[in-house]
Amino acid sequence: MEKREQLYEGKAKIIYTTDDPDYVIVHYKDDATAFNGLKKDSILGKGELNAKISTAFFNLLAEHDFPTHFVEQLSERELLVKKLEIIPVEVVIRNIAAGSLVKRLGFTEGQMLPCAIREFYYKDDSLGDPLVNEYHLEALGASTFEQLSELSRQAFEVNRILRAFLAKHNLDLVDFKLEFGLFHGQILLGDEISPDTCRFWDATSGEKLDKDRFRQDLGGVTEAYAEVYRRIIQG
Amino acid sequence: MEKREQLYEGKAKIIYTTDDPDYVIVHYKDDATAFNGLKKDSILGKGELNAKISTAFFNLLAEHDFPTHFVEQLSERELLVKKLEIIPVEVVIRNIAAGSLVKRLGFTEGQMLPCAIREFYYKDDSLGDPLVNEYHLEALGASTFEQLSELSRQAFEVNRILRAFLAKHNLDLVDFKLEFGLFHGQILLGDEISPDTCRFWDATSGEKLDKDRFRQDLGGVTEAYAEVYRRIIQG
Repeated sequence: MEKREQLYEGKAKIIYTTDDPDYVIVHYKDDATAFNGLKKDSILGKGELNAKISTAFFNLLAEHDFPTHFVEQLSERELLVKKLEIIPVEVVIRNIAAGSLVKRLGFTEGQMLPCAIREFYYKDDSLGDPLVNEYHLEALGASTFEQLSELSRQAFEVNRILRAFLAKHNLDLVDFKLEFGLFHGQILLGDEISPDTCRFWDATSGEKLDKDRFRQDLGGVTEAYAEVYRRIIQG
Repeated sequence: MEKREQLYEGKAKIIYTTDDPDYVIVHYKDDATAFNGLKKDSILGKGELNAKISTAFFNLLAEHDFPTHFVEQLSERELLVKKLEIIPVEVVIRNIAAGSLVKRLGFTEGQMLPCAIREFYYKDDSLGDPLVNEYHLEALGASTFEQLSELSRQAFEVNRILRAFLAKHNLDLVDFKLEFGLFHGQILLGDEISPDTCRFWDATSGEKLDKDRFRQDLGGVTEAYAEVYRRIIQG
């Protein structure tokens, strides 16, 4: 597959077209942003680690017959993926309380939730990606009730597969964000699965091994991402 | 039924016990608050109008075999109701865009929604009654998936009954908030149905005939509530 022109540049990734309209190349950058773009920095090596970690997770899902947009890793920072028609919804699954669950709803950080929580956010930078429900998304024309039910189902399935895998490597999957799209009418998991989009805590020490190290100025961002990668490639 | 001691005083109502533990008396005050208590005032005659309007709507629902906590109006400001074990959830149904739908999600005020939107809010003053979904409420122990499904069903049924009735009186039901509780295990609609908890617009002029007149300092609050009452008692 031949790389063609840049199609889109996001906060942490660049998308390139290829000579096949069904496929695009995702380039993982070192750039990091948080708080809807208010905090910005470049973290040396992050892009490469996220490309590798995403590849490992997409391969794990494939082993469980869970289809995604992932085709193959092309280089240290580049993944070949199916070109999706993006559904402007972020699907979040939470197993342990952190982030907005603590700030908005009064949960205690680190509290194991009595049930996994699924949230939808409407992907719209100008609105700050607000929390929504299926009725909002249907009325916004962002998605349909039927699609959202399928997104929920797939997100919980990803949660089951990832949690079980990560537990073997002494990592807690605190929460994570997924994005989906349509490929010739089929709903497929897209985007990335990395410490930028998941919260990973060491299951023993509770040490944060994800983007919260950047958000909260904890330092050691690259080292944390590298530690996640080191553990998960053990298979 | 004999009125006993004050059980609870809220922003707009006082609840009294009676000599029967299954029943309480709701006293409608003239006090009005908005923006989570930041704006406060007293509006002469509001309590009486809301008691009468709620009575009219609860009677309308009863005519449609829709059970609620309402028993009877005892005096100008007092309703006898079944004592509910409150479910700390506000259920909102929206037919036309207004309020937070405009501010948070970019809808245009007055825009007819392509589908009615149902929202859940967690009743907690200290958290500012945040928007939540059924997973949050289950994890918070506020309600169960099963109850919430029933609350949704009942709220849409109330919407159907009220919209059709109000349309006959040239009133648009823009949106409204309901609260429910348990009476010996049965889910019943509680609280009130009034211009404090619904948005009513004149269907021709779009004139606001509800609490937004207070929130937005439009004046003529009592007159608007009286106009709603005048129309709906025509049957």
